[in-house]
Amino acid sequence: MRVRGAPLIGATAAYGLWLALKADPSDAALREAGAALLSTRPTAVNLRWAVERMTAWLKPLRPGERAAAAYSRAAQICEEDVAINRGIGEAGLPLIQAAAARRPRGAPVNVLTHCNAGWLATVDVGTATAPIYAAHDAGVPVHVWVDETRPRNQGAGLTAWELLNHGVAHTVVCDNAGGHLMQRGQVDLVIVGTDRTTATGDVCNKIGTYLKALAAHDNGVPFYAAVPSPSIDWRVRDGVREIPIEDRSAREVTHMSGRLPDGAVATIAITPEGSGAANPAFDVTPARLVTGLITERGVAAASEAGLRKLFPP
Amino acid sequence: MRVRGAPLIGATAAYGLWLALKADPSDAALREAGAALLSTRPTAVNLRWAVERMTAWLKPLRPGERAAAAYSRAAQICEEDVAINRGIGEAGLPLIQAAAARRPRGAPVNVLTHCNAGWLATVDVGTATAPIYAAHDAGVPVHVWVDETRPRNQGAGLTAWELLNHGVAHTVVCDNAGGHLMQRGQVDLVIVGTDRTTATGDVCNKIGTYLKALAAHDNGVPFYAAVPSPSIDWRVRDGVREIPIEDRSAREVTHMSGRLPDGAVATIAITPEGSGAANPAFDVTPARLVTGLITERGVAAASEAGLRKLFPP
Repeated sequence: MRVRGAPLIGATAAYGLWLALKADPSDAALREAGAALLSTRPTAVNLRWAVERMTAWLKPLRPGERAAAAYSRAAQICEEDVAINRGIGEAGLPLIQAAAARRPRGAPVNVLTHCNAGWLATVDVGTATAPIYAAHDAGVPVHVWVDETRPRNQGAGLTAWELLNHGVAHTVVCDNAGGHLMQRGQVDLVIVGTDRTTATGDVCNKIGTYLKALAAHDNGVPFYAAVPSPSIDWRVRDGVREIPIEDRSAREVTHMSGRLPDGAVATIAITPEGSGAANPAFDVTPARLVTGLITERGVAAASEAGLRKLFPP
Repeated sequence: MRVRGAPLIGATAAYGLWLALKADPSDAALREAGAALLSTRPTAVNLRWAVERMTAWLKPLRPGERAAAAYSRAAQICEEDVAINRGIGEAGLPLIQAAAARRPRGAPVNVLTHCNAGWLATVDVGTATAPIYAAHDAGVPVHVWVDETRPRNQGAGLTAWELLNHGVAHTVVCDNAGGHLMQRGQVDLVIVGTDRTTATGDVCNKIGTYLKALAAHDNGVPFYAAVPSPSIDWRVRDGVREIPIEDRSAREVTHMSGRLPDGAVATIAITPEGSGAANPAFDVTPARLVTGLITERGVAAASEAGLRKLFPP
């Protein structure tokens, strides 16, 4: 967990292969480094995408050429991610502009997001945040409801910090609050990231995303996932049955870190000693609850047909 | 917030009137004490129920008789709450027994609960927990998924502690996890408390309850609220539109308290300085998502007809 965020995991794995090949450029080293990287995180598919792509590029080369090629290919993956981020921003901007047109003049568009799919999770401006930054930079008034995103608080800690630094109006809420806000008409649209999107449009993202999608559906609030194409797993058709969900340490639930009044970082226990905890890290939102997938090539319907229209086989 | 839990708020308010009348038994003091108590918490209706009932009892009496009468009437409210808790336990037990009969022999029934509607929130064994304790005491194997219940962590802090002390198997999960657990068939039924139930069966309970009800509905998991009759507000028909939702301090979201490794209690900040927070404390689950209301007189359908069958006007 030194590196998080599906796109950043992919880009970092590419550089990981470069480091491994610098030390030993043999076929065996390439295979072993790829396997070691793949075993670190089971859910996000960008990792597999990056490792398989790098391996396909590097394997045909002579060992002596591999390290230098790995470095330039890793840089290429990073540049692609930058372009993907910008493409998602451009594709998502009209959704926020349309929501603004439905609001009273000057009233901000309220976007709810879950977890962090911002520039701390990618190489550039993020995925879910890209349309938000694009709207803000275009002068569209935006206000973001930031889900805290327990247990690791990527919303309260990272997304809030990003938005604060970018000057985007935002309010942190507990993960419990989103349904109530939607019931009261206080959310215009939801935009989340994704760690893996199936060929049929199911969205696997940070645990709790599914609950927000249900609430959006129940209240007629549009629910979008920002989907960089490397997060699409064309081999998977049923997200709930097929995507492995990472089970993380119970300690992430039973303990929390933050700042003491003097600024020192401390970790506190928040459950009784003797009570166990479970920590599934992701959940799957079925395509039927997803209004659209914001890709770098435009907004796709959350279906195989919708995705294949933008990404032909 | 020295006192929490709708039934306990009602019982404590009754004793509050006694204290006020001991100091001054006049009509004005009775009126003012009632108004002061009512203003403390807007959402739970047990408070109004207790204050209005006490006032109706005490007002016709001569001032000199009021304090003693208030004390015995407050005790009566407590005794009623004990009986209500037991009635809810008896009414809810068959639901857990039926779920056990559908499970493989010896496999525990998985009950998910949100917040704390246990003996820390009532005078006796609680409301939502009463069927759980009844099942455990009857030898039915039960395992409870305890929602952390941000921002005040009544699940992680109070319900887990209660269950631990009662010897009931349980696992704390983040509020985000329930939908995923239901998707994977790991929840047999949901039982929550209520701060106010409308005449039509809408359930107002701790923020986040609505999200769990949506997930239960989406996955065919029975969703029950444990409803002591004093929490029924016969004057309200549309919970979403009519029930005032308490907005609590942003600090409950931005800060969290727990135990440092040396056992000392500390409070840490978990959001960036400069990021604001919102803290609506309750939400409303529409009756259409509620499988049944477990009252002290039996399980009612979540509808006016269902409630009136058990509680005729």
